[in-house]
Amino acid sequence: MAFLQFQLEATDAFSKARAGTITTDHGVIQTPIFMPVGTVGSVKAVTQQQLKNEVKAQIILGNTYHLYLRPGTEILEAAGGIHQFNGWDKPVLTDSGGYQVFSLAANRKLTEEGALFQSHIDGSRHLFTPEKVMDIQRSIGADIIMAFDECPPYPSEYSYAKKSMELTHRWLDRCFARLKETPDLYGYTQNLFPIVQGGTYKDLRTVSCEYVAAKEATGNAIGGLSVGEPEDMMYEFTALCTENLPYNKPRYLMGVGTPWNILECISLGVDMFDCVMPTRNGRNGMLFTTNGVINITNKKWATDFSCIDENLPCETSRFYSKAYLRHLFVAKEILGLQIASIHNLSFYLWLVGEARHHITAGDFMSWKKEMIPVLKQRL
Amino acid sequence: MAFLQFQLEATDAFSKARAGTITTDHGVIQTPIFMPVGTVGSVKAVTQQQLKNEVKAQIILGNTYHLYLRPGTEILEAAGGIHQFNGWDKPVLTDSGGYQVFSLAANRKLTEEGALFQSHIDGSRHLFTPEKVMDIQRSIGADIIMAFDECPPYPSEYSYAKKSMELTHRWLDRCFARLKETPDLYGYTQNLFPIVQGGTYKDLRTVSCEYVAAKEATGNAIGGLSVGEPEDMMYEFTALCTENLPYNKPRYLMGVGTPWNILECISLGVDMFDCVMPTRNGRNGMLFTTNGVINITNKKWATDFSCIDENLPCETSRFYSKAYLRHLFVAKEILGLQIASIHNLSFYLWLVGEARHHITAGDFMSWKKEMIPVLKQRL
Repeated sequence: MAFLQFQLEATDAFSKARAGTITTDHGVIQTPIFMPVGTVGSVKAVTQQQLKNEVKAQIILGNTYHLYLRPGTEILEAAGGIHQFNGWDKPVLTDSGGYQVFSLAANRKLTEEGALFQSHIDGSRHLFTPEKVMDIQRSIGADIIMAFDECPPYPSEYSYAKKSMELTHRWLDRCFARLKETPDLYGYTQNLFPIVQGGTYKDLRTVSCEYVAAKEATGNAIGGLSVGEPEDMMYEFTALCTENLPYNKPRYLMGVGTPWNILECISLGVDMFDCVMPTRNGRNGMLFTTNGVINITNKKWATDFSCIDENLPCETSRFYSKAYLRHLFVAKEILGLQIASIHNLSFYLWLVGEARHHITAGDFMSWKKEMIPVLKQRL
Repeated sequence: MAFLQFQLEATDAFSKARAGTITTDHGVIQTPIFMPVGTVGSVKAVTQQQLKNEVKAQIILGNTYHLYLRPGTEILEAAGGIHQFNGWDKPVLTDSGGYQVFSLAANRKLTEEGALFQSHIDGSRHLFTPEKVMDIQRSIGADIIMAFDECPPYPSEYSYAKKSMELTHRWLDRCFARLKETPDLYGYTQNLFPIVQGGTYKDLRTVSCEYVAAKEATGNAIGGLSVGEPEDMMYEFTALCTENLPYNKPRYLMGVGTPWNILECISLGVDMFDCVMPTRNGRNGMLFTTNGVINITNKKWATDFSCIDENLPCETSRFYSKAYLRHLFVAKEILGLQIASIHNLSFYLWLVGEARHHITAGDFMSWKKEMIPVLKQRL
């Protein structure tokens, strides 16, 4: 089996947008791509069949922190890895748990060695080191695995952002070293993506991009953005990072974002995205559609018997009416969560697919300019 | 459009079991049949596509009490009835709300006129009369609608059971009278099934069966059983009712039951069943399988990577492993509720389909004798 390959297929003349194909041992991914988040090996409220047939997901994400705590590496290894465990036979990416240790766990303590923390589930104590996190991700068995990093909050002092970035770089070296010492467990190749940090300081981000680029990884990620900074600043630092990361490798912007964030960042040269927004907001009744944003619990939808979104190639979006979906939300029926999640994810996958189409067709920027105000409007 | 037709296709030589076909304006139902409960127009945690393609449901049930309170008859009429509202284009049956008024609503008060109650949702006051309930069921637009009845608890004094049964009979007359005065709203025929009551008193049940039979309805129901009486008593009274209800009309035993209850009652001549057990117990981690009963949250399933049930013609039951499903339950993932609900309903539909097959093949009783201990065993 082979390392991840990235083939650039089209580049936009008027922006840094590009269309490409990532090839992994579990199949191909057409970029730009959105990756649904499947925290514990399940994309919340969506079956694997619906992910494939309706959402048309090409790769899903799992969270190392959650999978380590439950079901644990022993069960994942006994299953033969995450693909065997949850039945998803296409590519999987796992994050490194760094972000979760600092956002979810209790009593975390950071040292050169790693991060000591208590489980948010049962208070048990655990130590994540770069080596340990590589071992866990070996056990999980994702196709793309992420380096263990510290993600500083926004805003952070320059001195802290610098110290944190340097620690992340030293951890990155340890990740690569550990990965080199340990074999793939399940016969296919796992690809380590380093993560650029450096807060909102241009010189630090530039240094971090150079450090990361020097690793010559099969792909690279931009971390520490969309953590509370203004939107314009997020775009500015995304642009800075894409300019300083290898051109011929996929670039993954972690945790971003709204539909319009995604279109803007595609124009800045990002190839891969993940975000909990479509599923989490969907479960709260917020729908992203080709005509704008809907709060399905609003009274105005009570007798709107038109389908959720007639423009998507997704049976769920075309089959169920807004009135029925509103009724399900008002009555607190689980089916409402399922329909909203499937719809929103389908919309996100449609959106990146359309972006790809327009990059190839050469009219990406004019299409984006037209689309963004439509997507943003509140219906 | 036409009234419901029932065609008997095979009868068992060693029991009262029979296989038949019910034809409605929304298609045919092969009996014996199990009807998944879709309280507010949604079978909990199961999409309409999954109901059709995986569960292979032929008819689903809706609750008049719930649908009247939410979304309400105005919205259901604006949609063009329940089939248009929820997208389920096969047959639907609605109960009359009688049972829910007495089990869910607050401050209910029974008079000759009807039942006064307060909504369990917002405390608003409502009056259900036989006429009102017929009007509501007209608005909902199910293919089979149920008479408004009082369902006495177990145990009930003879005098109360008699008085209640007589009230139910007077209400039944009013239901038929109202239905005669009002047109089908959506161009297809609605069929009123009367309900036998009479508690656990043989003479009352016999009288009630005669009263109901005299209505010459297109089908008849047995109510007031499986409400706390011993299982043997439930079988005894089911047998008494099926003996006294028309042979050439479908017989519907309301609210029953476990897989073994269903097989026993098929042998007593019941054709139609509904119960919340497969979905409700499924959401609590109890799985009915062709090999016995599983509590999926038990530790013993943590590393059992075999599929949930290899003997069912349901993708969900064959695709997901017990270990993965247990993980989803432990992690409280919505997907666990979906898988368990789909699986349990598929099992129930498989069970009645197998019963039908063995009735036709002539070996129903020997098959039932073999199956019941298997289905009952705790795995």
